[in-house]
Amino acid sequence: MSTALYLEDLAVGQRFVSASLELDAGAIRDFAARFDPQPFHLDDEAARATLFGGLAASGWHTASLTMRLMVESDFKLAGGLVGAGIDELRWPRPTRAGDRISAEIEVLEINPSQSKPDRGMVRVLITTSNQAREIVQSCIARVLVWRRPE
Amino acid sequence: MSTALYLEDLAVGQRFVSASLELDAGAIRDFAARFDPQPFHLDDEAARATLFGGLAASGWHTASLTMRLMVESDFKLAGGLVGAGIDELRWPRPTRAGDRISAEIEVLEINPSQSKPDRGMVRVLITTSNQAREIVQSCIARVLVWRRPE
Repeated sequence: MSTALYLEDLAVGQRFVSASLELDAGAIRDFAARFDPQPFHLDDEAARATLFGGLAASGWHTASLTMRLMVESDFKLAGGLVGAGIDELRWPRPTRAGDRISAEIEVLEINPSQSKPDRGMVRVLITTSNQAREIVQSCIARVLVWRRPE
Repeated sequence: MSTALYLEDLAVGQRFVSASLELDAGAIRDFAARFDPQPFHLDDEAARATLFGGLAASGWHTASLTMRLMVESDFKLAGGLVGAGIDELRWPRPTRAGDRISAEIEVLEINPSQSKPDRGMVRVLITTSNQAREIVQSCIARVLVWRRPE
């Protein structure tokens, strides 16, 4: 908790890099069975005949794993990481079985609240890449950040 | 498959309503442990002292469940439901244990591709509501839709 970040600790252009994690076919299929049960997320053979050309993780799986990478990164906000909303979310290429992904968080904008002096809204760009440094997801998010108590 | 929708079958203003599903505390904690391990998503007692005031589902959990509601709805696109990106995602209030949520999909825009005559991009507004008809998520998504083969 000693390293938790307040609004005063952030600056536009700051970057935070997460650890990485590897995804296997079982995890892709398990997520899909629960949340996105479509052939291209469930079965490699069926996926070959689709736009994906082979088993691909649900975009929501990539997004959820990116959240975990963020929570476990050094981007540790006081009071936790609370998203106020997403302004853009793109999946330029699929996440595949065997991919090792990591996330980078860049501070884009810092907006102290006009009405609530104890907080601000910070816009961040979160870029998720695979082991070949290809971008599998980009996300612009608004996060709530508290001011340091006096 | 006989009812799968092509670009020609869609019209601005069309609405599709999903079934509903109920979320319990175990599912909220299980998702959080895998993807968003923060106190307000893991433990009701710890959550009381936070902005959420009690156990709340991760926004990514609500988003993932909304995807399943969509996949299982009558919004059945030929070739499957492939998101090209999200233009806006908001969580105006948290999803709680015991909530029963459902989604409504509304066609906002239909854009036939200029360069690829076999497809188009359709913008949809997906609104997820709880049993009290309170909105827990709104999402504007771009989905790929194929033209009917001649």
